[in-house]
Amino acid sequence: MPEPKPKPRGEWLDRRNCSWWRYREFLPLLPEERLVTLGDAVSPLVCLELDDSRVHLKLDFVSTTGSFKDRNAAMIATRLAYWGVERCVVDSSGNAGIACAAYFARAGIACTVYVPAYTSVGKRALMASYGAGVELVDGTRADATRVALEEAERSFYGGHTHSPFFGVGGYLWALEVVDALTTVPDAVVFPVGSGSLLLGAAHSFRAASSANGGTKYPRLYGVQADGCAPLAHAFERGLTEVDESKQWSTTIAEGIATPRPLRSARLLEAVRVSRGAVVSVGDEAIDDARKLLGQLGLCVEPTAAAAIAGLRLLRAAGEVGVDELAVVPLTGSGQKTLTAEAMR
Amino acid sequence: MPEPKPKPRGEWLDRRNCSWWRYREFLPLLPEERLVTLGDAVSPLVCLELDDSRVHLKLDFVSTTGSFKDRNAAMIATRLAYWGVERCVVDSSGNAGIACAAYFARAGIACTVYVPAYTSVGKRALMASYGAGVELVDGTRADATRVALEEAERSFYGGHTHSPFFGVGGYLWALEVVDALTTVPDAVVFPVGSGSLLLGAAHSFRAASSANGGTKYPRLYGVQADGCAPLAHAFERGLTEVDESKQWSTTIAEGIATPRPLRSARLLEAVRVSRGAVVSVGDEAIDDARKLLGQLGLCVEPTAAAAIAGLRLLRAAGEVGVDELAVVPLTGSGQKTLTAEAMR
Repeated sequence: MPEPKPKPRGEWLDRRNCSWWRYREFLPLLPEERLVTLGDAVSPLVCLELDDSRVHLKLDFVSTTGSFKDRNAAMIATRLAYWGVERCVVDSSGNAGIACAAYFARAGIACTVYVPAYTSVGKRALMASYGAGVELVDGTRADATRVALEEAERSFYGGHTHSPFFGVGGYLWALEVVDALTTVPDAVVFPVGSGSLLLGAAHSFRAASSANGGTKYPRLYGVQADGCAPLAHAFERGLTEVDESKQWSTTIAEGIATPRPLRSARLLEAVRVSRGAVVSVGDEAIDDARKLLGQLGLCVEPTAAAAIAGLRLLRAAGEVGVDELAVVPLTGSGQKTLTAEAMR
Repeated sequence: MPEPKPKPRGEWLDRRNCSWWRYREFLPLLPEERLVTLGDAVSPLVCLELDDSRVHLKLDFVSTTGSFKDRNAAMIATRLAYWGVERCVVDSSGNAGIACAAYFARAGIACTVYVPAYTSVGKRALMASYGAGVELVDGTRADATRVALEEAERSFYGGHTHSPFFGVGGYLWALEVVDALTTVPDAVVFPVGSGSLLLGAAHSFRAASSANGGTKYPRLYGVQADGCAPLAHAFERGLTEVDESKQWSTTIAEGIATPRPLRSARLLEAVRVSRGAVVSVGDEAIDDARKLLGQLGLCVEPTAAAAIAGLRLLRAAGEVGVDELAVVPLTGSGQKTLTAEAMR
């Protein structure tokens, strides 16, 4: 047996056990706040070959509830627990609702998730498995939000869409990336629906860039699905916000099927300032990307695969150089969607 | 923006980015072996209250393929890749087959998984999503192993049941525990089928104990399900191996439904030497434990919940003191099983 390994000097890093709370000092937390924790692992950053070029994939589906939303949910649950909130309502049809259900359960806060009536029974079962109430709302995703906000008048709004803690999970995400790479990447390609991750990450990349004299800032790219691409549509036309009158259809990338993203002006600005772009990809390209990732040992949901389809498009167009340091988050696990599909 | 944080002195820890390969020096690897990596995150160790007593839960379902089997699969894939193996066969009906499919895909090794014909279509879809061939074998789990071993004569056996790398994932597991706690626990409660995790962990706990002058060694407990409890049956009767003639029925904890564990003599000895025990619990207690974990924000499969049902039993019997430092692995995610169940 070799000698026990030496303790690292920055003891707090080791003590926090590979958790994202190692970045606590960078977060808008009050000193007396008690963290709501539930694993909270820094997600792995893996470098591999994709179409003969290297890419860094951040495996955000390696998380307690299976998606990048754990960070947001932990932040919101921490603040609501601090305020003594005993019950709250959330609007979501997927990963956010699942993550909130888990972290609110951990915090002892009763939680009701308002979901569109078309939400799959599998996802509803997951939310309920954490003890959350699940209420079906007829209509669109936006109708679920509307009803949740009405209900919040009588309890508390704990969702992420309208929360001031909206982007804080993204702060953490970018800190994890810069810390793991020990540099700022050249390009980051996000799947974008309401855009919490991109906006939050932009904040931390700016901070990291100023700390280094502002010499390097990544180009930020958003990827949408052709079936619902309001941001890509606005970006192409040079608009400062999305055209809310435009009608969209459906896509297999349901996690980013957001026809009217609340912060579209900020999103478009963040992308333009970074000299990135918003593009959109078809469902076939998304499914091809999903299969390609599978053959590399990574099982992700279509929404996550959309970002890879976007990277391929951006590389083919010469927007992202094949030698550039590119990072793509794989935002959600394919295990639940794939199992559900196979059972049908 | 605060000053950039100081680099830890043990630089290799930081460089390896919260991956279990930080313990590479403790593993039976050859210096020239190229690691097959796919995230490989050290799983979070969470301390929480369960029935008013603290317990440390190791969230092994927070992994690239959703179970603790990633460690074993990575070790086996690393060695087979080193040997230049191009295709192999694996026997499994669940987590091991899913993990092997992923890691062999990453290594570029073609893989066929032999599963019992009753294996759920959801699990088969997951294996296939990594590009693995999936072959149905009529009969029991043991028949799948038999056919895989026959096929291995023509290719290579890459499964874990009969592999010499069988327990190495467990070495890593115990190192992660000792490292995170900075001490050896009092008691560890494992769900046990073929017992790879318990046996591997015993190895590392012994090593950690000798390094500290042999003063502390944890009691190791195995938990089985009443429907298939050959080890608990043998333990109670003071037998040195399982009674292979005994017939068993079924259980919801399908990951530990192993009627004739290959290394039963070593397992029983390891448990006795540690002054632990093997117990068994009913499906109702398992399902209660699963629901309890859900209400704490943790969605696990029944096999993982069995260990918690076992801990409750051991605490009630005074075998494990409520003030003792107890660790329980939560071995597999409930997201795939729960989704599949809900879709039925």
